[in-house]
Order: sequence, then C-alpha cells, then structure tokens
Amino acid sequence: MVSFGRVEAIFIISPGTSNSGGESSKESSRSSTPVLAADRTERLRDKMRRRTESGDHWFSLEFFPPRTASGAVNLVSRFDRMGSGGPLFIDITWHPAGDPGSDKETSSMMIASTAVNYCGLESILHLTCCNQTKEKITGYLSKAKHLGLKNIMALRGDPVGADWEEEEGGFNYATDLVKHIRCEFDDYFDICVAGYPTGHPEADSYDEDLRHLKEKVDAGADFIITQLFFRADTFLKFVRDCRAIGITCPILPGIFPIQGYQSLRQLVKLSKLEVPEEIMRVIEPIKDNDAAIRNYGIEQTVGMCRVLLESGNVPGLHFYTLNREVATMEVLRQLGLWIEDPRRPLPWAVSAHPKRKVEDVRPIFWASRPKSYIYRTQDWDDFPNGRWGNSSSPAFGELNDYYLFYLKSKSSKDALLKMWGEELTSEQSVYKVFTSYIKAQPNCAGHKVMCLPWNDEPLAPETNLMMDELDKVNRRGVLTINSQPTINGKPSDDPIVGWGPPGGYVFQKAYLEFFTSSENVTVLLKVLKKYEPRVNYHIVNVHGQNTTNAHDMQPNAVTWGIFPGREIVQPTVVDPVSFMYWKDEAFALWIEQWAKLYEDESPSRMIIKYIHDNYFLVNLVDNDFPLDNCLWQVIDDMFELLDNPPDEQPTDPAK
Amino acid sequence: MVSFGRVEAIFIISPGTSNSGGESSKESSRSSTPVLAADRTERLRDKMRRRTESGDHWFSLEFFPPRTASGAVNLVSRFDRMGSGGPLFIDITWHPAGDPGSDKETSSMMIASTAVNYCGLESILHLTCCNQTKEKITGYLSKAKHLGLKNIMALRGDPVGADWEEEEGGFNYATDLVKHIRCEFDDYFDICVAGYPTGHPEADSYDEDLRHLKEKVDAGADFIITQLFFRADTFLKFVRDCRAIGITCPILPGIFPIQGYQSLRQLVKLSKLEVPEEIMRVIEPIKDNDAAIRNYGIEQTVGMCRVLLESGNVPGLHFYTLNREVATMEVLRQLGLWIEDPRRPLPWAVSAHPKRKVEDVRPIFWASRPKSYIYRTQDWDDFPNGRWGNSSSPAFGELNDYYLFYLKSKSSKDALLKMWGEELTSEQSVYKVFTSYIKAQPNCAGHKVMCLPWNDEPLAPETNLMMDELDKVNRRGVLTINSQPTINGKPSDDPIVGWGPPGGYVFQKAYLEFFTSSENVTVLLKVLKKYEPRVNYHIVNVHGQNTTNAHDMQPNAVTWGIFPGREIVQPTVVDPVSFMYWKDEAFALWIEQWAKLYEDESPSRMIIKYIHDNYFLVNLVDNDFPLDNCLWQVIDDMFELLDNPPDEQPTDPAK
Repeated sequence: MVSFGRVEAIFIISPGTSNSGGESSKESSRSSTPVLAADRTERLRDKMRRRTESGDHWFSLEFFPPRTASGAVNLVSRFDRMGSGGPLFIDITWHPAGDPGSDKETSSMMIASTAVNYCGLESILHLTCCNQTKEKITGYLSKAKHLGLKNIMALRGDPVGADWEEEEGGFNYATDLVKHIRCEFDDYFDICVAGYPTGHPEADSYDEDLRHLKEKVDAGADFIITQLFFRADTFLKFVRDCRAIGITCPILPGIFPIQGYQSLRQLVKLSKLEVPEEIMRVIEPIKDNDAAIRNYGIEQTVGMCRVLLESGNVPGLHFYTLNREVATMEVLRQLGLWIEDPRRPLPWAVSAHPKRKVEDVRPIFWASRPKSYIYRTQDWDDFPNGRWGNSSSPAFGELNDYYLFYLKSKSSKDALLKMWGEELTSEQSVYKVFTSYIKAQPNCAGHKVMCLPWNDEPLAPETNLMMDELDKVNRRGVLTINSQPTINGKPSDDPIVGWGPPGGYVFQKAYLEFFTSSENVTVLLKVLKKYEPRVNYHIVNVHGQNTTNAHDMQPNAVTWGIFPGREIVQPTVVDPVSFMYWKDEAFALWIEQWAKLYEDESPSRMIIKYIHDNYFLVNLVDNDFPLDNCLWQVIDDMFELLDNPPDEQPTDPAK
Repeated sequence: MVSFGRVEAIFIISPGTSNSGGESSKESSRSSTPVLAADRTERLRDKMRRRTESGDHWFSLEFFPPRTASGAVNLVSRFDRMGSGGPLFIDITWHPAGDPGSDKETSSMMIASTAVNYCGLESILHLTCCNQTKEKITGYLSKAKHLGLKNIMALRGDPVGADWEEEEGGFNYATDLVKHIRCEFDDYFDICVAGYPTGHPEADSYDEDLRHLKEKVDAGADFIITQLFFRADTFLKFVRDCRAIGITCPILPGIFPIQGYQSLRQLVKLSKLEVPEEIMRVIEPIKDNDAAIRNYGIEQTVGMCRVLLESGNVPGLHFYTLNREVATMEVLRQLGLWIEDPRRPLPWAVSAHPKRKVEDVRPIFWASRPKSYIYRTQDWDDFPNGRWGNSSSPAFGELNDYYLFYLKSKSSKDALLKMWGEELTSEQSVYKVFTSYIKAQPNCAGHKVMCLPWNDEPLAPETNLMMDELDKVNRRGVLTINSQPTINGKPSDDPIVGWGPPGGYVFQKAYLEFFTSSENVTVLLKVLKKYEPRVNYHIVNVHGQNTTNAHDMQPNAVTWGIFPGREIVQPTVVDPVSFMYWKDEAFALWIEQWAKLYEDESPSRMIIKYIHDNYFLVNLVDNDFPLDNCLWQVIDDMFELLDNPPDEQPTDPAK
C-alpha cells in the first residue's frame, strides 16, 4: 500500500537560489477567542520563528496521498495519532499522476484539506509546476485557499520524458512558481522551497545549485526543507554555505529513517544519492531482516539528529515518514521531541481552517460526529465566538444521499454486520447492540461493538464514568447516543475532563440524548413535570413533531470554563434551532448506516425502519450542576411508572 | 417646592375621540441577551397587553419636572425609590413655561431621559402642541427618539389667552399631534392620549367629547389615561360609554390621592372638576390638619381603587403623585400592588434606552458611578452583548471640565466639607475620611461620611461583608474605592449577591481597587510575584505609567451567572483598555470633587493634589474563585514587608 515513488516530488528538485521575506500580519487579539493559544491565529512562519527564538526544538512530518479510499481513511486516522505528538506542521506531497487537485478523496488537495479542517493540523500542500499552465496553477492555488490551506511547498516537479526543454514564459523552475504565487496571491501563502545538501543532481555544480536556491528565496520563499542526507556534516556544511551567500531563512533538515532495504535502494536510484559506505556495510549483512534494518535506521537517525540539534543550527527536524508511524515515532521519542499533550484548548478538536480561527462554540449534538459538523458548516462565513446566540440563524449544509468519505463509517460493511448483527430479530436485538457498544464487550456472535452510526469511535473516557447507568437504561430501550456527566468546577488540567489553559476550572451540566419508543415518551413527559424547571428537554420524532419546555430560540450552555485573566468560555451548547438539523441527520443514520446493511424488505431492515419511523429522539439537560445529576433518576422514574402504571398500582389493603 | 400648576398638562385636554392601532413589532429573541426579561425589548403597549392578559394588576406614576437643579437630583432619587416598587411606567409632564425640550437639567425632556437612561424606567414624555409649529414639534420628537424615549403622551395643552382661535393646518387638537407623530415617525412611538370621565370642560357635551376621544384613538393612539375623578362609578360608566362607541384600547384610570386641602382646592379650580359632597363633608372640618387629610385621602383612594380593580375593567392604575411619595406608596401597599422585588436582572442597574437593550457586559470600574458610565458611552452604536471582547475598541466620551448634573455629587459643597474635612493636615487625614466612610461612622468632627468622590452612595450590602478588612487597609493608606468578594456559586435569588432569573447560580472573582502611594506600590510589586498567576493586577499613575501581568487586550470576567436553559452571562469584566479611560476619571475626581472644595494654594488642597500627582491606582483580581479570597493576604504581605524590609529583618542569632 505504501508507494515509495510518490515521495519523489520533494527529491527531484528544480534548481533555484534566497532571503526570508514577509511581514508578520498579526491580528488584534482583541476580537479573538479568549481561550485559544496564539498559534491558532499565527502564520506558520511566525510560529516557526517564535519556537526557534524560544530555543524550543520541534518537528514536522511528510506524508503522501493514498491510492484508495480505505487508504485515505487509514491515513486520516494516522494524522490523528501522529498529530497527537505535536508536529509543528505536516506536509502532503503532490502526486501529478493521481489527479492531485481534484475532489477525489485520495487527491493531494483533499488529503491536505482533511488534515487542516478535520484533524486541525497546520499543513503544507506541495505543488509542482512543470508542464502546467498558469491558469491551471492559479486554479489549484485558489482552490487550496478556499479550502483553508495556507502554506505551499513550491516545486518544479519531474519533467516528463528526457527531451524536456525550457518553455518561454512557462514554469521552468520552482522560482517561477514562487514568483507566480507572490504575484497572484500576494502574501497570503507561506511558501516553502526545497534545498539540496549535496547539490541537485541535474545542476552543473553545487555552487550553481546554491545560487538557484538563493533565487527561490529571493523570489519570496519563507523557508527551506532539504532533501534527505545520511551524514549530519553534509547538512551543516550546506547551512554554512547557504548563510555564506546570504540565505537567512530557516533551513529544515529532511530526515529519512531507513526502514527497509528495498525502499533504500529505490530511493538511491531515484534521487541519485549515494549511501555512505559505513551505512551500506551495516545494512548489507542484514538486508533480509526488516526488523533489524528498521532498528538500525532508528539508531542511526537518532544519532544523526542529536548531532544536528546540538549544533545549534537546527531549530526543527522534518521527517519523511513514508506514511509509516513506528520508526519516526520511535526516533522522536528517543529525541524527547514526541510530546503528547493531553491538554485540549477546547473540549472538542479545533479545526485549523483560518475562517474557523475564532470558533469557540458548537452545539453538543455533533460531539461524536465532528467531521459531519465541520462538513455541514463549511460554507459559513462567520463562526460563533463567545456565544452561540450571536450566529443568529445557523444554515447547515444539506444532508446528501451520498456521504463524503469522512462521513462514512471507518469500518467495512462486513465488519459492521459482525458488530451490529447479521440478522436482527426484534427491537431488543438492537438494544443489545447498544449495550455491547457501551460495555465494549463482544456481542452474542463474539464480536466487539466498536462503533455505532452516531459514534465512530469507542466511548470517550468521560463517558466511561457513567457506564453502569448507560448499560442499565439501554437494556430497556433508552438508546443513548450522547451524554456527559455533571462537572462542578474541576481543574482545567484534569486528565479526563479538563481543557483550556492551566489554572482554570471547567464545568458541565449533565446531558443525555437517546432514542426511545413513543410509549416511553408518553410516560417520560409525565415524569418530567416533576423536574420542572430543573430539567430542560427536547423530544422530537422523524417527522419533526417537537415537544420542549425550553425557550424556542435560546441555547443552553452545557460546558463552560473559567480561566485566569479571561472571559468565560462556553464551548458547548444545546441549541434548539440546530437540534432540528441534527435530528434529520440522527434519524437518517438509522437508515443510511444500519438499515441499508440488510436486504430490502428483510426483517432486519424492517426492524431498523420501524425504529426510525416510530421512535423519538430525546435530549435532557440537568440545569442544577452543583447537585448530583438527576437525569438517571428521571429515567428510573419513567421505568417505575411504566412498570407500575397508576391504575394498576396495588392499593393499600389497610385503606 | 412642589408646584401644583404643572399637573395641568394632563387636566386641560383637547377634545378628541378611538381605536387601538399598531402592530406588535417583536424582534427575534435569538440575538437578545440571554438573561434579561422580555420586557427589556418589549414595547410599552405590548407589556401592557401581556400584563393585562395575564390578569395581573399593575400601576404607573406621574411626575412633573422640578424647578431647580437640586430638585432634579432629589427627583431622580425619588425615581429610584419609587421605581423599586415596580411601576409599569412613569410619565413626565410637559411644562411649556419651563423650556421643556431644552438640555437644562430641569427640563421635561432631560428628566424623562434621566428616568430612562439612568434609572432604567419605562417612561412616557408628555408633549403639548398648542401654539407650536410642526418643525418645532418634529424637533422635540426627534430629540426624544435620540435620547431613547419611546412613548409620548399627546396633548393639546393650554391655549394662551382667552382669544385663542383654531389655526388652519396647525395643531388645534391632540388628534392633530397624534396624526403628526404617526406621519413623521411611523410606528416608532407608543402614543397615549387623555380621556375625560366627566367630559372635557370645554366640550359642548359629554357625547361630543367621547367622539373626539375616538378620533384620537383612530388617529393612532395606543391607550388612554384619564383625568382624575372621585367616584369609581364615574370611571366605570366612562369605560362603558367608550366601549359602546368602539374604543377598544386600554383605558387607565387617573388616580389622585387627596394630600392636602389647598392642593385639592387649586385642582378643583384649574380642572373645573367638582368634588363630591360626601368628600367635602369629611374634609372641611379637618382642613388645617394635613396628616388627617392625607390619611383620609389614602383611605378614600384605597376604597375607590378596590372597586375599580374588582370591576374587572381596570387592568392598572395611574397615579398622580404630585412628586410626593408617601400617600401613593401607602395606597399601593394597601392594595398589594407595591412589590419590591429584590431580584435584579443583572448585578448592575439596567438602562431602559432601546439601544442598550442587548447590553449585558460592563467594566467593573464604574460600578459605583453607573451614571458616568452611561453618560460616557451614550454615543455608542452597539453595546457589548455576551462578551466584552466583541466591542473591539471602546471609545469613551471625553471627560469634560463641566459635569452634567447627574455626574455631580448629590451633596452640597457645605455637606461635602463636613464629611471630607474642613481642613486637611496630612495624607493621614485623608485616610481617616475613607475609614469613616467604610464604617459609616462619624468623622472626628462628628459628621457621618455618606459618600466619596468615587462612591455616590453608602457602601453596598455586599461590601459590608468585607468591612473589617477594608477598614484595616484604609487606615494604612490603601484607599479602596471598589471591591467585591469571592462568590463560588450562590443561588441567583440570594438576597445580597443574587441576580438574574431564578434557579441559577452566581459567581465572582474577588476584586479590589485602591489608590496607594508609590512606596507601597514598589513593595506590592515584589509581593505580587508570589501570587503569579493567581492574581492579575493593573497599576497605573495619573501619567498613565502602567504595570500589569494581564493580557493587554483581553478582559477578565469577574462576575458571571449560570441559569437554567440559558447561555452563560458575564455582566462584569476587568477590561485593560477601559481601565485607562476609567483611570483618567478616577484621578480627576480627586481634583474636581475634593481638592476644589478648598482655597487655591491652601494646605488642604495641596494634600489632595499631592495624592493625585503621586499615588497609583491599583486593581487586583483573585482568579482562584473556589478558594478563599487571597487579596487581603496580598495587602497584609505588603504591610509585613514594609514593616520588616529584608535588610532590616532581625537575623537569627543562632546562625
């Protein structure tokens, strides 16, 4: 699945030459979100400078686009995992043969967009200009900008065929592309160019190649990432030579942990690099032992990186991951650069799209489907900041029949059938799927239920705190799809429920959302009268028939945080207007993700269809956050009343 | 001081006739402030309808403009006191001889504006049109609209001289004025007109007068307030007659509690009303006993009002107060209509200006000078709602050399000298003024200190909770001007610190603001290092030299509330930008209110001038609201370090 050839985009570099340009365009922090770190609004080049000036070492990661849709789903999961180690940025190579600027889920453009929008990663999109018209390139850049991409790696790319000739006024060198970007998009993009520590193989000389690099930087590039190399000295000499001719911008070493004999050979052939004898001497004898080679690669890389970092001339390391995790993560761990920071700026994952930089309020409904939320709000011009109420009437994107890949389940149809049942015999068999999911236990066929249509991931640690109660109510057909416990002022660095800057306190109102039958709802409504005004509810069926005791326009803040020197942050709300949009999606998931697994007219499908048509979606908020969560008691009272309806209750014989 | 003649505006009524017009223009509640009651955005006519439909009885109060500036200050205090009983609205009569539309502090226009803007009272401004040009009237109405007035009582007014004649195309009747308002200002104003239960004295007949009233209502009036009367039957018959000819709008009875023999006689003369014999029979024998007449008036009024309310045709009672409090309040108390609701929608008094209807955040600095805050922000087009941060750069009105009357101290120069000292001998004598104020005790000259330049009122009950600490630090020259204790989730209906709707919880970060010497500040800064990042501070002198450990743009929310079904409300912030505006005012008050009490070059004046020039204004926030307030400890540590500077501390002899 991992194709080596694609990494070439960065390897085969047009000649070029340098000077860091660009002004920091810092916005007034007055209107920005109080709780989010500066790096949400900072440009990549400013972040890089700030980290460098602070003496802080950092790393970045390069990936190439996958071949298949399932490869794309896996790569996005890898982004999430490798993103948790704290890369300063990731970059996505441009794969000219793979329709790189298209809307295909495997295109370079879409992968980079996903990294930015859904994974919240600062990302660089590669772009090669060789054999492209200016219109085409401008089109790619406009699209990238629209998608929220802010950084471009400007490359010449591979000439097609040996008889390539310079084209008058065309893109002959990366320098032309850098100039074009600055000309058409002014200072919008941060631009990176490639450097070649041993000189570009096509260049007449090392010195001529350096001069080309200076030209690229002078044309407006902000920093340089180098081709890989095998000796620290090679890179350090290159940096000295660059500085000597006046290249002052950051130069990031491209680090390539050797991960296998074949990939190394292919690399050498493509890049015309020479592997030093001391390395070949070690590798040749173990060439059939993949694990041994990888271990050697890790050891050799760690050693070289230590020399680089200790030189004082290397602020950060850029890793050619080959879309693999183990070697790079191990190198970073050994270097002490892999820092999993459990702190979250907000309780939900923040998108890196520049338009969303002030976003700090979301409705709770999409808590387990953030990608759907981002997708459905991608056309918003403003994002709620401070209050949800300000975004007067949220227009959510339509639910389409087809879902983009990031709205799909990560699991195959086969895996879903194993988890959710090859055959359903009753509503109770659906209840059992829910309880298996909640307890993370195998179902009766022995398969663990790892996801539900409304929850693409196993339960959050926070939800585990309520596992017993959730299990109990799901058994009886209160099919929970979202919940949070009461929190009355836990420190903001609490490992499970904490978020936001240190020294603060976080709070929650208990929330519970579930599907349940209309019989249950009838009784529930009676019970809820006893809980006025403590509990707010919204109860709606697929047709939109809606019962509520809440204000019809005002949101209810259910998560908030108090921090030193800040305004209050309230990142999650129960919003009555958005709930009607979510309701459509929540009901549609029964059919789209579950019912359609089964044959048309099959009993299994009919059971899901019945639930879809007849159950209600209910949400409950316990407003009295300083007290114990009363929502379980509400459900208990409902069961009690169902079990002992008033007219059947045993009368006291003494009366 | 109370002039009876001015009440005539409502008594001498142009003929007129009826139908309640107007559409309810209810705004979307989506963008409104989450915590404020509907009546902040509702129009008067809608509030009236809502209260009437709910079967709720209510009252309103009529005042006339005062003659003198000190009368104006007293009247505004009376608005605050009588406003606390919950009138649906107050109205201010138009006094043609008193330059009623001017900017004089005693004009009808300014008194109504003060009631709306500073006292937060729904108010009706009377307006008479007799002998006025259309341009003049339009000018008055435009000015009223600009000042935030939303309701007009449209009257003809007294013709000047006996030879008055109708003017072609001029304002001959109140109907003309109603038409003019609707024509020029569309539906902007709610319009009230006068009704005459026994017929207007100038009308040809009772029936003709009723027809005139219907004309006025048909022209666009929203409701009717009647001339006073002495028997319930008079009013009830009048209402029946109005309904019979198709007048459907609300008709409010004008209630006049007899308060004295002379005023009753004068009224009878002016209004050509006849006092019923059964009343004269009681009054004549006691005509020299004011208390007895007032008691009778109260008893008679209560009895008549009971009949009116029990009739089911009277939703509310309109009182001619004659600018007096006792009789009206007693009547209202006996009727059970005087309901002092200690609940506050927000911790500060909400203004009734329509532009301010979404305002729900203010800087804490003006907590004791809200009128100054409202005055200095009157030109804002938007008011902060939800967050202070959104109102990007607050432009406060300039501090002028002259202060409008509502920025002045309520006390006379003489009273101020008694409170703050006829002669100051040292900075310590200033400290003693502060401690006397805090303890509400007499100063050495035996006078209670009821106010300070920064605090126009005695200390708030909340501040009393901290009296001992405040006393202690003021004695040593930490001259406190603003403070609030820590509150970690008290019920929103707490009688001292509660605010907002029921069922919520309110919170505060401890706050302390004071002037102190530069010697103290030097030591304080050392002490504050120990309290990082728990305590945020701003320290500034009159020249603007500023030291802070807070973000230079982001406000710190220091008061907030969590309510059922609402977003978080954070009505008070420490805003670093506004603090610089407040600092100018806070320092200026030393000179304007205090130093200028003394002769130029006098020692007393020089002492205040010295403090003004050399002291620093300090504010401190304890961010850790769940813990005990540490700010007193900060000050104690400062004193400790002042008393035992490190180089003078006794060394341990054992060492």
